[in-house]
Amino acid sequence: MPGKVYLVGAGPGDPELLTMKALKVLKEADVVLYDNLVSEEVLEYAESAKLIYVGKKMGHHFCPQERINQLLVENAQKYRVVVRLKGGDPLIFGRIAEEMEALEEAGIDYEIIPGVTAASAAASVAKVPLTHRDYTSIVSFISGHRKRNMPLDIPYKHLVELGGTVVVYMGVSTMKEIVKGLMDAGLDGNTPVLVAKSVGLKDQLIIRSTVSDMLSLKDKITPPAVWIVGKVVEFTKKIGDPRVLDQL
Amino acid sequence: MPGKVYLVGAGPGDPELLTMKALKVLKEADVVLYDNLVSEEVLEYAESAKLIYVGKKMGHHFCPQERINQLLVENAQKYRVVVRLKGGDPLIFGRIAEEMEALEEAGIDYEIIPGVTAASAAASVAKVPLTHRDYTSIVSFISGHRKRNMPLDIPYKHLVELGGTVVVYMGVSTMKEIVKGLMDAGLDGNTPVLVAKSVGLKDQLIIRSTVSDMLSLKDKITPPAVWIVGKVVEFTKKIGDPRVLDQL
Repeated sequence: MPGKVYLVGAGPGDPELLTMKALKVLKEADVVLYDNLVSEEVLEYAESAKLIYVGKKMGHHFCPQERINQLLVENAQKYRVVVRLKGGDPLIFGRIAEEMEALEEAGIDYEIIPGVTAASAAASVAKVPLTHRDYTSIVSFISGHRKRNMPLDIPYKHLVELGGTVVVYMGVSTMKEIVKGLMDAGLDGNTPVLVAKSVGLKDQLIIRSTVSDMLSLKDKITPPAVWIVGKVVEFTKKIGDPRVLDQL
Repeated sequence: MPGKVYLVGAGPGDPELLTMKALKVLKEADVVLYDNLVSEEVLEYAESAKLIYVGKKMGHHFCPQERINQLLVENAQKYRVVVRLKGGDPLIFGRIAEEMEALEEAGIDYEIIPGVTAASAAASVAKVPLTHRDYTSIVSFISGHRKRNMPLDIPYKHLVELGGTVVVYMGVSTMKEIVKGLMDAGLDGNTPVLVAKSVGLKDQLIIRSTVSDMLSLKDKITPPAVWIVGKVVEFTKKIGDPRVLDQL
């Protein structure tokens, strides 16, 4: 009888932001498959597990998705508790669907354990409410990930018209293209932006700037990072936080 | 010297979905201020704390926001560790900003601990990826909360044009108005919807239906619940889950 696979959100990196349920399955795990978005601190909880790296290195696909699917199925056939650990929340830009389908097809039981998504973690450290009754009651998460060198397929005009907070995931290398898209669609260049990298980890970097100035930050920021665009970011002005490098 | 206030996301209700950091401050807490969205199971971790209920009852404001702000400040002046516990993630529709401002004005140190938001929790139990490369790379969270009997101020047209997954928070009593707004703006009535209540708790209820049929569910659903609208909800069709009452 095959084991069970847990598709687990590891949260933003800070091991204290793991859920208790995620901690429990990590401690029980026989095998953990993890990628770049998972911090070493989190992996240390998997005391008795075999660790298998299935991430990308240097932007190249180190392990194709088909191979990850295959590894999940193979390990579930050998072991009792298999954990697939993903940064943040697995259902928000976690590319979890293909793994779910592969497990279903192989008849393997699985469970999804949600996690704290990067937007929430970044906002909490920078003290930025993602929604605010005086600013906006809408927050949209979009992906800046480029597929096979194609231009991004982001509906900039509708996003700007919507007028809510926008959080861009995986949008560091495509920052220039997205900023241009938003501004061409009418977003005010003075709209504040918060860029957050490695929240809760040693190399945490949080910068506040404006849409028109953010391209000058490009060299400071390396993936993975999220950026939050919208008037809510200004709320930090009243609050002040020494951990935020403020360029406003 | 005043104590410290922790503005803490309690997650969706299931105590295992608390973060370790939230658990730690709950165990240390001298006082916990909580409202309706926090489950009893979570409160049990606050073993040695005085519990203060600051929620609404029967839809009426039991405790006005000004009074909550005042209680936070007063308790921080008396105690070392004060926890303000909110359902889900405090920065997503948590109305946290006023409490942050009140603490700042009173010169009280505070920290925000993010949590698993209701959308992630609902999606994990129902096995619905909120984003999916073949469906959409955008997910928007909106609020269905009505302010002082006013009509809702939701930009339906822009939301529908955006074409992403939409998650409605606090939209049970306003469900009829929002469904009409979305359909009048051109949303296909056959678009699938997932309604999720009390995820991970005993009274958990998850129903899948379509936008045009969801009004017939109105009597089954009581707050708090979230609903997820979009093609991604169809993904569950392939997966199947006995915990989802399927009306598609």
